[in-house]
Amino acid sequence: MSTADETETSIAARLKRNEAGLVAAVIQQVDTGEVLMLGWMDDEALRRTLTEGRVTFFSRSRQEYWRKGDTSGNIQLVKSVAIDCDGDALLIKVDQVGAACHTGTRTCFDGREIPAVAGERSE
Amino acid sequence: MSTADETETSIAARLKRNEAGLVAAVIQQVDTGEVLMLGWMDDEALRRTLTEGRVTFFSRSRQEYWRKGDTSGNIQLVKSVAIDCDGDALLIKVDQVGAACHTGTRTCFDGREIPAVAGERSE
Repeated sequence: MSTADETETSIAARLKRNEAGLVAAVIQQVDTGEVLMLGWMDDEALRRTLTEGRVTFFSRSRQEYWRKGDTSGNIQLVKSVAIDCDGDALLIKVDQVGAACHTGTRTCFDGREIPAVAGERSE
Repeated sequence: MSTADETETSIAARLKRNEAGLVAAVIQQVDTGEVLMLGWMDDEALRRTLTEGRVTFFSRSRQEYWRKGDTSGNIQLVKSVAIDCDGDALLIKVDQVGAACHTGTRTCFDGREIPAVAGERSE
């Protein structure tokens, strides 16, 4: 087994997929720290993301692979990938070209705050 | 219907839950922008999070509510909550006391990078 194969095998072993075989991928702009969006990946979408320098998701609604920006031009250039402690989430730092959201906003959360009671530290 | 009830109803209408009735919640440190962890919420966990100033998740493995820090002391103080464009993810900015990860690391992604080919802008 080559080192690349071993790496792929050990990563696959660490992933805990949901009922649909997917893990959640948080996409963060590498320099500003903005959380741009959340997408979903199966093993093949993650393999492509790790090897192509571009982020590929698996679309739950369309049930197909979707390389971000192929249609819109708003591509996501991969900078780093990390897997969380229990293997059910990925943090992918990217350089986002243009808007991350299909609605045209920079992130999928912009202008979509909902009212919340803020918590304070009790000193 | 009170304003609070209306708000709750309209938020509930915007959420798209997965097969298990849950949405993914990205937890981000408000000042540094670090992505601390990803958790899961059902409607009741979100209601508690919006009203208590503290983050409550729904544990998929234990099938119970879990208010972050009640056992460890590493609480998450809510600063803002946003819902994404298609209603299946939440971005919750918090002030994290201590470590976010049960393993003792600041975030659940620290030291857990996996090898990836970096993408570059072609000018």
